[in-house]
Amino acid sequence: MPKIVDHEKQREKVAEATWRVIQKMGLDQASVRNIADEAGLSVGSMRHYFSTHSELLFYAMKMVSDRVGKRIANIDFSGDLLTDIPLLVDEILPTDEEKRLEMEVWFAFVVKSLSDKDLARYRLEVDDGLRSIFIEIMDGLAAKNLAAPDLDAELEIERFYALIDGLAIHAVLRPEKMPADLMRRTVYRHLQSLCRPSE
Amino acid sequence: MPKIVDHEKQREKVAEATWRVIQKMGLDQASVRNIADEAGLSVGSMRHYFSTHSELLFYAMKMVSDRVGKRIANIDFSGDLLTDIPLLVDEILPTDEEKRLEMEVWFAFVVKSLSDKDLARYRLEVDDGLRSIFIEIMDGLAAKNLAAPDLDAELEIERFYALIDGLAIHAVLRPEKMPADLMRRTVYRHLQSLCRPSE
Repeated sequence: MPKIVDHEKQREKVAEATWRVIQKMGLDQASVRNIADEAGLSVGSMRHYFSTHSELLFYAMKMVSDRVGKRIANIDFSGDLLTDIPLLVDEILPTDEEKRLEMEVWFAFVVKSLSDKDLARYRLEVDDGLRSIFIEIMDGLAAKNLAAPDLDAELEIERFYALIDGLAIHAVLRPEKMPADLMRRTVYRHLQSLCRPSE
Repeated sequence: MPKIVDHEKQREKVAEATWRVIQKMGLDQASVRNIADEAGLSVGSMRHYFSTHSELLFYAMKMVSDRVGKRIANIDFSGDLLTDIPLLVDEILPTDEEKRLEMEVWFAFVVKSLSDKDLARYRLEVDDGLRSIFIEIMDGLAAKNLAAPDLDAELEIERFYALIDGLAIHAVLRPEKMPADLMRRTVYRHLQSLCRPSE
């Protein structure tokens, strides 16, 4: 089915052009015309890939989280949580240019979702998915008897999740203050603080 | 000078109307017309308070951080850091409806600042100011001999700051998952984890 594949590839190309327009000009400038220009397509041909502007924006938003999900699915976990958790978190954090673009676009959609019901519904779905990662992390640490005693699991889930979102936003807003290395050391330090001291 | 006072009061009223428009419709809908409608003013009279749309938006953004700054300046510190630091952080966090509106508006401006140089310059200024709060916190803990041994101060400054921004964003995006009480307990837990164990 090469045609279907090409069609989907083309939709992704248009969505990537949407990301670049958002990065350069802001989400409010992500008009069909500006996106078509960026993608090197005619405005008329855009209708072939997305029937409405909303559909295009929603697809471009969804592609961010789909890419994160795919990267996580491709991780070759070792079974050692102190290695695996940083690997997992690394796929959420904007540790390189490509992921920084994703995150920047994601924040733009998140803010837009505050006054757009369809985007809001999807944002909540993604939020649930991300929170479940931190639930699994805390469950994993407890199950492997690595967790420090007397942790308040509910609080620690929210603390870790909030820290990661805070690091991500700081890396987008002020990349020179939050290089990948500092993000990784911060994650590792936080993870260690959740674990009982090793003998 | 009652006239000058009235004029400034009126500018604040217009800026507050701007916040409400941003909250209800998004920053891209914060046109002079929509803001005038929300403020109960005629479009023509708006020119009396702000000569350009950009000036109005900038003022509305600046009013968010000015209010946070004023609240912090009004704190009656006790001198006991384990009491004072949570009080300080509380003024940044969206622990009530009013502060949640401020934070929601702030995030909208922050995202817009990614494609607007004037807003970006101001955002960096505020970022420097916020970071200096966390530098002072870590310095204070060290000076009073409360800090746990072997802390990496640079990393801990960024970790605490990122955590606070993450909590703030979560409280705006999903208030029911991040009530004020959970935010406060998380801050306190984090603060304690930075301190040496008390005897």
